[in-house]
Amino acid sequence: MEITQNGSRPVNDDRADNMTSNMQTVSPALEKYEKEVLLKQWSRPDLSARDRSIITVSALISKNQSAELPIEFRFALDNGVQPRELSEIITHLAFYAGWPSAMVASQIASVIFANRKISASDLPLASPELLPLDKEAEDMRAAHVQQQFGAVAPGVVQNTTDLLFRDLWLRPDLKPRDRSLVTVSALIAAGQVAQIPYHLNRAMDNGLTQPQAAEVLTHLAFYVGWPNIFSAMPVVKEVFEKRSK
Amino acid sequence: MEITQNGSRPVNDDRADNMTSNMQTVSPALEKYEKEVLLKQWSRPDLSARDRSIITVSALISKNQSAELPIEFRFALDNGVQPRELSEIITHLAFYAGWPSAMVASQIASVIFANRKISASDLPLASPELLPLDKEAEDMRAAHVQQQFGAVAPGVVQNTTDLLFRDLWLRPDLKPRDRSLVTVSALIAAGQVAQIPYHLNRAMDNGLTQPQAAEVLTHLAFYVGWPNIFSAMPVVKEVFEKRSK
Amino acid sequence: MEITQNGSRPVNDDRADNMTSNMQTVSPALEKYEKEVLLKQWSRPDLSARDRSIITVSALISKNQSAELPIEFRFALDNGVQPRELSEIITHLAFYAGWPSAMVASQIASVIFANRKISASDLPLASPELLPLDKEAEDMRAAHVQQQFGAVAPGVVQNTTDLLFRDLWLRPDLKPRDRSLVTVSALIAAGQVAQIPYHLNRAMDNGLTQPQAAEVLTHLAFYVGWPNIFSAMPVVKEVFEKRSK
Repeated sequence: MEITQNGSRPVNDDRADNMTSNMQTVSPALEKYEKEVLLKQWSRPDLSARDRSIITVSALISKNQSAELPIEFRFALDNGVQPRELSEIITHLAFYAGWPSAMVASQIASVIFANRKISASDLPLASPELLPLDKEAEDMRAAHVQQQFGAVAPGVVQNTTDLLFRDLWLRPDLKPRDRSLVTVSALIAAGQVAQIPYHLNRAMDNGLTQPQAAEVLTHLAFYVGWPNIFSAMPVVKEVFEKRSK
Repeated sequence: MEITQNGSRPVNDDRADNMTSNMQTVSPALEKYEKEVLLKQWSRPDLSARDRSIITVSALISKNQSAELPIEFRFALDNGVQPRELSEIITHLAFYAGWPSAMVASQIASVIFANRKISASDLPLASPELLPLDKEAEDMRAAHVQQQFGAVAPGVVQNTTDLLFRDLWLRPDLKPRDRSLVTVSALIAAGQVAQIPYHLNRAMDNGLTQPQAAEVLTHLAFYVGWPNIFSAMPVVKEVFEKRSK
Repeated sequence: MEITQNGSRPVNDDRADNMTSNMQTVSPALEKYEKEVLLKQWSRPDLSARDRSIITVSALISKNQSAELPIEFRFALDNGVQPRELSEIITHLAFYAGWPSAMVASQIASVIFANRKISASDLPLASPELLPLDKEAEDMRAAHVQQQFGAVAPGVVQNTTDLLFRDLWLRPDLKPRDRSLVTVSALIAAGQVAQIPYHLNRAMDNGLTQPQAAEVLTHLAFYVGWPNIFSAMPVVKEVFEKRSK
């Protein structure tokens, strides 16, 4: 499955057949919007179809919306998201969306991986050699969080350092920029506005450009609903403005 | 199915039989509360059973709670929500709760529509003649959003104007007041407090009275949980107070 | 099923077999984290395995994540949560997470209760003798809410007093401290930060210590995701600081 000549997602797959039939019998308008608007979002500039698939599956996992996950997982693989990357996205979201969401995603992915003969050798190692740590930046982050919350919940602070920033974020099979894209998408999807500034700055430090970040919002509006996007925009605006100074 | 003489929702349908049995074996208290409290909410004053069905299905779709959707869709139709209105509610929430939630709702509704012989001629056209636009008010809204967020996410701002306020909101098969009721219910259900002021004002401009808006909160408390209501009340209060000046 | 010698949750049950297989074919890393990190959280100090089960099932019900509920319900019973307590947790969350979430939980629990021969005599009465009311504290709470929101949504204010604080909270089969634990867990899981101060104070008035409250955050991070915890920590910090004065 790939982006077709006219720039829309093809609709001739299992889910599309099925859902198109449902839409025809419930809302012909929805079918029209899907064909004429939603699917064309996928060929807008600034984000590749691969990026859009990363954003979409991250939002779905974050919101625990399993019904659309099979089609979006297959589409992600077709769009060039590697199995080892999809594996890491699910592992990453175990921590950023909660274990139960990752378990559901894992169950769905296992069926698709089996069908596509994706095997252990295509997957990340459980304990690979980690990416090098930017020790100065990480020490500053850790000190800041320790100062804020060390006396509130020392277990959280310790786990955040040991498990997230000195382990998970350094796993090599998902680039830091993509890991940030996963995180920011999950935050917007979950309405976790207060956590956006740190992670959007990190995403842009990791190479996400401002037009790309803006396009994340434009794309996600369709998948998580307009209200989440309008709640995110004020803090995104503030991040953009501070960085341009 | 209709509101019975004594003012409660009848419980003699499939879901009720099934759930009542579950409740008896898990929580007799829950069964008591359902009969003595929850179902009687449906005959409180200020909102019709039809309004309450619109509110309830909007909240369920918004929270992606599909298990109760079949019974609530059937109950909505029994309460006088027209098939074309239910179709529009699902289409509306594709934008306000995200496409995946609307897909799940569409799948469930397609079964119910088929069972009730609801056919294409009962549904809204994909591209009907739109309601007249209040150009002055819409230009003001668009200018305000452009000024706030035009430089942040131009794609979102453009889509908001073109797809939502100059298209979706003008579709004729759901009255603007009901469309507002759907939107406000979805916002409260999703905890999107920051978006309530604009849409509650719009709802009241579209004819929702203050006692009706208050009753939306009272009704929704049972379906989305008390915390969401207490988080919404301060902004609802502010809207009420500003409008009474 | 119980905490094993080495302090981790055992993984030799149905779900674990199944999910471990899924994890092996999708993310060996996830399997490693589950064994080496997640399951060991259950034997950290400050909260018993029973407390952790109460927290975990409350979070899952609150987020409507039904896929993991069967295993967590069984584990809760194995950890010493009594059937009557689990029944009350579900009833409590009907009000604090919304009726549909409680219905799903009730359906899942009914299967487990049947398998374990848990019968009506093991369950709370629908209308038991209530715990004594702390009338002075409750009158103060009611007056405060009436003053804030009595003119906004009188139905909500009335129901909050009559159904929640003069009925639900006084049901005897779940201790007030445990009921608070359920409520605080559900609030953090749902991202309802604004409601945390009142209920965390109530929890601590009901006997939850500060180290226990901190450990709730540490435990929940894995089950509801890090962002929810970081959004909750500033208000938790404020509660801790105000109480220590």
